Amino acid sequence: MKKIQEVLSKIEPIDLELMEKAQVRLDSLTKPPGSLGKLEAFAKRIVGMTRQLRPSLERKVLFILAGDHGVVREGVSAYPPEVTPQMVYNFLRGGAAINVLARHVGAQVVVVDMGVAVDLSPQPGLVIKKIGYGARNIAEGPAMTREEAIKAIETGIAVVEEWESGRAIGPSPALMVGTGDMGIGNTTPSSAIIACLTGIEVKAVTGRGTGLTDAQLAHKIRVIEKALEVNRPNPQDPIDVLAKVGGYEIGGLAGVVLAAAAHHLPVVVDGLISTAGALLAYQLAPMVGQYLFASHKSVEIGHSITLDKMGLSPILDLSLRLGEGTGAALAMGLLEAGVKIYNEMATFEEAGVSQRDPGSS
Amino acid sequence: MKKIQEVLSKIEPIDLELMEKAQVRLDSLTKPPGSLGKLEAFAKRIVGMTRQLRPSLERKVLFILAGDHGVVREGVSAYPPEVTPQMVYNFLRGGAAINVLARHVGAQVVVVDMGVAVDLSPQPGLVIKKIGYGARNIAEGPAMTREEAIKAIETGIAVVEEWESGRAIGPSPALMVGTGDMGIGNTTPSSAIIACLTGIEVKAVTGRGTGLTDAQLAHKIRVIEKALEVNRPNPQDPIDVLAKVGGYEIGGLAGVVLAAAAHHLPVVVDGLISTAGALLAYQLAPMVGQYLFASHKSVEIGHSITLDKMGLSPILDLSLRLGEGTGAALAMGLLEAGVKIYNEMATFEEAGVSQRDPGSS
Repeated sequence: MKKIQEVLSKIEPIDLELMEKAQVRLDSLTKPPGSLGKLEAFAKRIVGMTRQLRPSLERKVLFILAGDHGVVREGVSAYPPEVTPQMVYNFLRGGAAINVLARHVGAQVVVVDMGVAVDLSPQPGLVIKKIGYGARNIAEGPAMTREEAIKAIETGIAVVEEWESGRAIGPSPALMVGTGDMGIGNTTPSSAIIACLTGIEVKAVTGRGTGLTDAQLAHKIRVIEKALEVNRPNPQDPIDVLAKVGGYEIGGLAGVVLAAAAHHLPVVVDGLISTAGALLAYQLAPMVGQYLFASHKSVEIGHSITLDKMGLSPILDLSLRLGEGTGAALAMGLLEAGVKIYNEMATFEEAGVSQRDPGSS
Repeated sequence: MKKIQEVLSKIEPIDLELMEKAQVRLDSLTKPPGSLGKLEAFAKRIVGMTRQLRPSLERKVLFILAGDHGVVREGVSAYPPEVTPQMVYNFLRGGAAINVLARHVGAQVVVVDMGVAVDLSPQPGLVIKKIGYGARNIAEGPAMTREEAIKAIETGIAVVEEWESGRAIGPSPALMVGTGDMGIGNTTPSSAIIACLTGIEVKAVTGRGTGLTDAQLAHKIRVIEKALEVNRPNPQDPIDVLAKVGGYEIGGLAGVVLAAAAHHLPVVVDGLISTAGALLAYQLAPMVGQYLFASHKSVEIGHSITLDKMGLSPILDLSLRLGEGTGAALAMGLLEAGVKIYNEMATFEEAGVSQRDPGSS
């Protein structure tokens, strides 16, 4: 818990003064003021987060945290649990959706085994931080011990800090972190966490995951309700919620968010699972919200509710429901576009372009 | 008119059979079916448009058509008209927003002088096709003659065909066309065209352009109403509408859309002005709608109404209102992401990943 406390104490507000300076530059560029809408807002927020008046987003990393879930024995997923390690190997070979999209936007993919149910072969690109062989069945009891929950968050912190400390010597370039997940069954604990922390009824935050039928969805809702009844997580204690109805990768995602915010790094949050992790971090330190970008609006119904809770609005709405960090990767491309607009456009003065008519507002 | 007729006769429906084949591949990839939402739909439509079962979007071009507007004398823009040529030079030096975003997505920018009010210095990247020195003041009479309107559309067609004919020998890669505009005052004729062709009242399709005050917006609405009263364009005759209340670059944009569709090229339509041009093309040949992607939802209020009319839904919603093709460039990046997902992801078989549980839908 000491590591978590240490990181929480380092999270500070974004730099409003530098953001004012960024606004002056934005308004000097050859376009009507504000006409690039959210692209301008992205650049301004990134200046505030990174404390760099001319940030670069060339270094981008997507952390994909993987874990299994005993609750799959209740029949809450359309896919069998062996798909978790199979997909991890697919990530490592570069054949998954997240690999394609990460290459498209120039981001690195780092896969972290937080709690896959089998041992994975060590190989480049895979960080093995296994806390347990799958979270336990939340319909029958807690997902993990409180100690394991703390360890999951601290491991997420360590993953970011280890990666960060390897940065090139010299004027450190700003960088951006994206979150992603892999774990068959993990929409179930995510919806349980969201229902518990927001106080919203389970059926309003539970979706079809990888593709359940109506009957299967109704069953999944009952399983989550049972998990909350059996475990009685305390909504005032995010670590208790994680321990009772969470998962190792979800705790890790909370740690990634906390560490990134503490290190002044923008964090691009993916879909339902990543957002459940971000919500845990937000409950521990609401100020992390200042460092978050919501990448997209997922098809999963619990997603928008959770973003609202944190005051975030999604950048994209492409009817995605895959996870893995796919939405985060796409949004990174747009955030980088905003920063390039800010860095690379000519000013009115440089380009010799006339300003507005004096009579105009 | 012969050139226009020839192109209209070449526009055929997209290939539904190939799209079925694309769907089979999409469903074999290592993700739950349909879980990448619109990205999958993008790839499927692009296969249908291009007739290439494995299309590539490496070659992308943005045509930025420029023209001036006599109606600026009525005080409908926040910027003086000399900004049109100044911004053209900014495009050619690479300092404008569209240059930054085109570089970001790997698209080429081609600037076309359709009717800028002054002579521009010939230089690389600038295609001079000037039809007149600015469209005439639509508040007083027609923007141009019917012959000029036809020539504007035919010029847009020629711009695409000249560019197309220069393509590398060998198996032709698929490519994608984006539209953009530059012309101080050009939201005024765009809203006039949209009001006339949709039958919707002027005030519901007229926005603040580069940043008018409330009083200036009310004045702009009155100017457009006057232009429609003075000219009485025939909504059944898109060429009459273009001649009476349009502009050279808007006619050119209609031609770009027609030629692209005739050549099986996906067209990514930018904001209000590009969409007014696309609407003219759509009225001449509704089948062009099958080749269009609406890049974004502009802040300009006439934009969404026009997209609805053509059955298009916007890819992005970033509160943009700049034009130049900026929304089109950003959307190209997402369309290319969809095609890469389709081309580059591993199948379940290739990756050795288990399919769904037999009991699931």
